[in-house]
Amino acid sequence: MSFTEQATHARAAARVLATASRATKDAALHAMADALAAAEPAVLTANDTDVDTARDKGTPEAIIDRLRLTPARVAGMVEGLRALAGLPDPVGDVVRGWTLANGVQVRQVRVPFGVVGIIYEARPNVTADAGGIALKSGNAALLRGSSSALQSNRAVVAALGDGLEASGLPREAVQLVEGGHETTAEMMAARGLIDVLIPRGGAGLINAVVEGAKVPVIETGTGNCHVFVDASADQQIALDILINAKTQRPSVCNACETLLVHADAAPTFLPRALAALADAGVTVHGTPEVAAFGEGVVPAGPDEFDGEYLSLDLAAAVVPDLDAAIAHIREHTTGHSETIVTRDLGSAERFVAEVDAAAVLVNASSRFVDGGEFGFGAEIGISTQKLHARGPMALPEMTSTKYVLTGTGQVRG
Amino acid sequence: MSFTEQATHARAAARVLATASRATKDAALHAMADALAAAEPAVLTANDTDVDTARDKGTPEAIIDRLRLTPARVAGMVEGLRALAGLPDPVGDVVRGWTLANGVQVRQVRVPFGVVGIIYEARPNVTADAGGIALKSGNAALLRGSSSALQSNRAVVAALGDGLEASGLPREAVQLVEGGHETTAEMMAARGLIDVLIPRGGAGLINAVVEGAKVPVIETGTGNCHVFVDASADQQIALDILINAKTQRPSVCNACETLLVHADAAPTFLPRALAALADAGVTVHGTPEVAAFGEGVVPAGPDEFDGEYLSLDLAAAVVPDLDAAIAHIREHTTGHSETIVTRDLGSAERFVAEVDAAAVLVNASSRFVDGGEFGFGAEIGISTQKLHARGPMALPEMTSTKYVLTGTGQVRG
Repeated sequence: MSFTEQATHARAAARVLATASRATKDAALHAMADALAAAEPAVLTANDTDVDTARDKGTPEAIIDRLRLTPARVAGMVEGLRALAGLPDPVGDVVRGWTLANGVQVRQVRVPFGVVGIIYEARPNVTADAGGIALKSGNAALLRGSSSALQSNRAVVAALGDGLEASGLPREAVQLVEGGHETTAEMMAARGLIDVLIPRGGAGLINAVVEGAKVPVIETGTGNCHVFVDASADQQIALDILINAKTQRPSVCNACETLLVHADAAPTFLPRALAALADAGVTVHGTPEVAAFGEGVVPAGPDEFDGEYLSLDLAAAVVPDLDAAIAHIREHTTGHSETIVTRDLGSAERFVAEVDAAAVLVNASSRFVDGGEFGFGAEIGISTQKLHARGPMALPEMTSTKYVLTGTGQVRG
Repeated sequence: MSFTEQATHARAAARVLATASRATKDAALHAMADALAAAEPAVLTANDTDVDTARDKGTPEAIIDRLRLTPARVAGMVEGLRALAGLPDPVGDVVRGWTLANGVQVRQVRVPFGVVGIIYEARPNVTADAGGIALKSGNAALLRGSSSALQSNRAVVAALGDGLEASGLPREAVQLVEGGHETTAEMMAARGLIDVLIPRGGAGLINAVVEGAKVPVIETGTGNCHVFVDASADQQIALDILINAKTQRPSVCNACETLLVHADAAPTFLPRALAALADAGVTVHGTPEVAAFGEGVVPAGPDEFDGEYLSLDLAAAVVPDLDAAIAHIREHTTGHSETIVTRDLGSAERFVAEVDAAAVLVNASSRFVDGGEFGFGAEIGISTQKLHARGPMALPEMTSTKYVLTGTGQVRG
């Protein structure tokens, strides 16, 4: 089927979903979970094929690990669908409402976007996750997974479709988009067919979509997240936050990538920090001012402060004051999550006001910037753009609104 | 100055605005109003030059009328700036907040976008209006007016800059972007320099920006707005709403462009409606079923149901039932404002649920879909896209949000 045919089917399915009750959608999510659980053997067999192909191509083990499904990971996908059924439905929520002087009633009501396109990389668990979130929020999903996960994604989408059909909803509500790069280009140009595109993956994928798309995009985030240790910081707290933000899960976007230390704190903090980082297996890429305080600091290259390591590596620099820390972050931030550790109220307030990011943190780990930690129950990604949604995106962020005006014949004078 | 230099100055100004208090911004708005009032002679002289040039080029009178400034229009711009000073400041509003189980406090706070680019056509009053709205919401504005209004826009922006400077804010907070089409292309590609682009103007301009921009865009609206007269409609109400929506101000986006009449209502409604429309000077472009009920109906061409007339013209068709009306609107809507006139609750509910538009109206004129009528006090445009803002956009819609997390050393387990 051509992409345009798929998208046309998705639009028709979206019309059904837009007026489906929460009960109908929740029943479908459970049916999808049942079908996916029943399809576990087929999904794992398909995944074996993908893993074998990837291995034959010499794919790195870290990427194969993301690609691989296990019974536990399939069970996680199944549980994720059931958990969505337990969450409130944002569709139909009245955001606000008032009555005009002439008696016309105005309500702003949450409605689904319609058709959501999701372009993502190797993890096949995203297929169930994104399909489920789209369905719960009343949207049809066009899922563009990577070719390396094709067999796995086909097996998962087939199971989700069986569940949808069993519950009386159109199986075209969740579709896998196959084909080469020209299909991705068609998706990005599909104004009128796709309402919103969400890329999930590395910086290269996200940039390609943001630069190329004519359809509105929600940019999800690369995170070059900084921890700034102020002169007045409680140094034990600074150390705890640094180690947690760097090492608790280094491969994610809210992990710390850069440490900035106030010059006044450096002589006491950096020797402890460098030792603790070394103990935790972290390689520090530091400026000479950092290297002066410990062993094993690798010299920071010229672009060292701009990227995401997503590994047990950390860029580090000493800054003369808060202004320099804010200026450094301003120059290098990706606008995800930025942290200050301080006991000074004025420093905290300036950092919060002047650092421009989806999240700013005072004396807490950036690992909390996460839909799950926020209590959202589901997360489609963390937006680093300023339009529509910024920060963790949950079910309400997967909706638009519509104004409903009800009168008794009022006209404008 | 190159566009990149201008945008860099705008970013620096935006940092100042982001932390400016409401009192500072309101004082600046009054100072801008004072400076614009004082500059009235210079603005009118500059405008005379633009009008003379336009006339020499054979510009149509309707467009010259939009271009022309008068003492009353300048006074309107001045009053608009003062009115903005009286409105609440959205920046700093806490949208929601909660505390995590571990004691970390989370607040979602409104913050300015940063730098807003506005690309607009001949009306020079937009210059003061958009500059003022941007300033009140804490954003720097890069205003890309049309070359036909260049002298007027320069004079207005110079006055606004004088007011900004007099109040201690950077004059680069409101800048006019000059230059040819290549400058517009630079604006549309200016990721990292411009946070949001808002095109204001006709369908051609808006499409060019939406298709070409790499910067996030808020699409403001063309409106092919429909009035559907259901079988059960109170026909006097239907007539009042139709005439009001079509004729009260035909040149605006929330005016009615297409009439659809239920077949059961046609024999009684259309004769009255056609007579009343003719009395109001409206030319009806109708299908043969419409023409059967009155004199002077011009046959509707094949694309007649797709465009905006923005004039005293109206497309008209008879539809067999509500389903056909919804299907017709689905095929031809621009997603702005769609109206049903009915006494049937089920029809009203289906129309509201199934028609996908920024606003849906039951028994009220679509002319109410307007920031002023909604009581917003200011309006930058009416969004017809689904991301971020849909419908009339006021000051809160000119902001993003930021999550602020405050802890006492909490880390993730």
